[in-house]
Amino acid sequence: MTALTPASATHTSAHGNGVAGPGGRVFNFSAGPSVLPDEVIRQIQEDVWNYKGSGVGILEHSHRGRVYEACLADAEAAVRKVGTVPAGYKVLFLTGGATGQSHLVPANLVPKGGHADFLVTGYWSEKNFEDGKFYGPMHAAANTADRKHALIPGDDEIRYSSGPAYVHMTSNNTIYGTQWHRTPRVPAGVPLVCDASSDIYSRPIDVSQYGLIYAGAQKNLGTTGATVVIVREDLVERGSKDIPRMQQLRTFAKESSMPNTPPHFAIYTVGLVANWILAQGGLAVLAQRNADKAKVLYDAIDRHSGFYQGHARREDRSLMNVTFRCRTAELDEKFCKEATAAGLDTLKGHRSVGGMRASIYNAFPRAGCVALAQFMDEFARRNG
Amino acid sequence: MTALTPASATHTSAHGNGVAGPGGRVFNFSAGPSVLPDEVIRQIQEDVWNYKGSGVGILEHSHRGRVYEACLADAEAAVRKVGTVPAGYKVLFLTGGATGQSHLVPANLVPKGGHADFLVTGYWSEKNFEDGKFYGPMHAAANTADRKHALIPGDDEIRYSSGPAYVHMTSNNTIYGTQWHRTPRVPAGVPLVCDASSDIYSRPIDVSQYGLIYAGAQKNLGTTGATVVIVREDLVERGSKDIPRMQQLRTFAKESSMPNTPPHFAIYTVGLVANWILAQGGLAVLAQRNADKAKVLYDAIDRHSGFYQGHARREDRSLMNVTFRCRTAELDEKFCKEATAAGLDTLKGHRSVGGMRASIYNAFPRAGCVALAQFMDEFARRNG
Repeated sequence: MTALTPASATHTSAHGNGVAGPGGRVFNFSAGPSVLPDEVIRQIQEDVWNYKGSGVGILEHSHRGRVYEACLADAEAAVRKVGTVPAGYKVLFLTGGATGQSHLVPANLVPKGGHADFLVTGYWSEKNFEDGKFYGPMHAAANTADRKHALIPGDDEIRYSSGPAYVHMTSNNTIYGTQWHRTPRVPAGVPLVCDASSDIYSRPIDVSQYGLIYAGAQKNLGTTGATVVIVREDLVERGSKDIPRMQQLRTFAKESSMPNTPPHFAIYTVGLVANWILAQGGLAVLAQRNADKAKVLYDAIDRHSGFYQGHARREDRSLMNVTFRCRTAELDEKFCKEATAAGLDTLKGHRSVGGMRASIYNAFPRAGCVALAQFMDEFARRNG
Repeated sequence: MTALTPASATHTSAHGNGVAGPGGRVFNFSAGPSVLPDEVIRQIQEDVWNYKGSGVGILEHSHRGRVYEACLADAEAAVRKVGTVPAGYKVLFLTGGATGQSHLVPANLVPKGGHADFLVTGYWSEKNFEDGKFYGPMHAAANTADRKHALIPGDDEIRYSSGPAYVHMTSNNTIYGTQWHRTPRVPAGVPLVCDASSDIYSRPIDVSQYGLIYAGAQKNLGTTGATVVIVREDLVERGSKDIPRMQQLRTFAKESSMPNTPPHFAIYTVGLVANWILAQGGLAVLAQRNADKAKVLYDAIDRHSGFYQGHARREDRSLMNVTFRCRTAELDEKFCKEATAAGLDTLKGHRSVGGMRASIYNAFPRAGCVALAQFMDEFARRNG
């Protein structure tokens, strides 16, 4: 079966305007679930009918069969290779999203009477901090809420508690549009736990600096349904045994992510995306590409600094989620409406920040950033 | 975009034999994940590229956007309509599979110091019973393990305890190939909880007889990643508040299954399958079709009763999973090998039962049952 070319494969927008992406598809700035590489979607179109000549579609494959076992092993190997995951770390596929991990991590790693430290830098880390409190008296070692989470705290303003079980961070703040461009200093011997849902594998990563990294797959790694967990083996073993079997990380480690029927299609999709990253040249290539894409948009904001205002402090700007606003909420609304009509989709910011948010993960094309920057130029000219 | 016809769309098997299904696809007897209707797969092939003309593929759609919200609402409405789910019941979509519910149900519904009763009729209800013990001293009101789970217990051999929080049953035993063809009598006022993963919506169901029904979607309702939960509203409200937020059914009820990013593609697929069931004429039509399909296979077993032996007691035979074996394990192995070569795929029985298992859920075509029955005839003739 050859790759499909839909009848509507032109460079016009589904919304009737000329600014859209190719193949009848608009530029999709969704914060997640978000854009996948075209090649990955083409592959999925083939594989749902007949996966690797097995005569069975990928959605219908038994997870206990040889064909799917090879698929899962390939996905795990690709995830390991992309991130140069060292020996001594497990790569697991779970369900429940990053929010599920927000519970499983403290359930596994906070001992009775213990606690953990949180670097609270945005919406999701606020949730992590709150969810963690079910398992012990958690400590906020830093909290940027008083500065509208517009920045990443310096090491000098982080105050760790005594003897935390781990330090939790969120590497990229999807909603506020800030990103850690360094790894925070943590107390010696204390594992660093990172929610990397919105920037995993968007740049090189030194996995050995972390005890546990988790990410919902639907932003940079695939689609919904699978949560990728990269975890040091000693932490798996250290995990509590006083919690239900299906909440223990060791259950998933022992059973190669299949103590029960896994989210097998979502894992397959992670494999496709990880292999796509390798085919692009790996994380160094993607990092350069992502920096370049983000620069196109931040340059547009800065070029019209009297008209647009970025939310994030300049040195903490996210390369994944570009947040900005116009002078008034009315202009923001007009911006989103006209952008949508021009085939620039899902730019409305989260209600807690307002304004606009352009999410430009790995698979988002540079042409979409250029199109948005041009639209920003025109919009500022027409409304300035 | 028109429906795709792959270049390999002939009636020959991917395995090189002539007995296969159409379109380059073999007959897939997998116990789950399992076969989907061809029409559903064709729709998915279109929708992953561009869902409903939105210019965005379904895998990439923001779960908070209008387009996807309508998709989820449609899936829920279709699930309600297929099962004639009465007012006073919620239809929820969760993650973690049926095994996840094996934990969430007791976590929510067994009060401190309380317990529940289990009808242990197979592999999965044994697991449910074991998992339940984390939450209290569970009671097996019936257990057919001593009879190799080859039958469903009569009401006269069920011994309920005093004051269970609920009674748990598994409506179809995927591995042993037995099925409840009646609803068990339970003590007055005690909610009946049913794991219906392997026969949900294969026949008409009176939801009002149950307090809670759950099912992994990957057998009769779609693919992996989503768990459908149909639950009486008073049980949602009665649920414990002393458990983590993401384990409370009320969290999912309050937030319309979206307290966090849901398994949005899996839910979309449930919607496609539920609408496909409606298009077939609903559950009465499917029940007739499923009974007819199963009869084709059970007739073949009975026609060669000296050669094949069915596992289940005749009156408790499952219409979803047909389990049988030859006289020797060597013949079983030969059967599976030759069947696979003939395009009759994934017939090997579960290790705890041995022999063969033909899973013939809603979407499995009658032609596949006829092909298998013919193969059984020939195999018995050649090896009898």
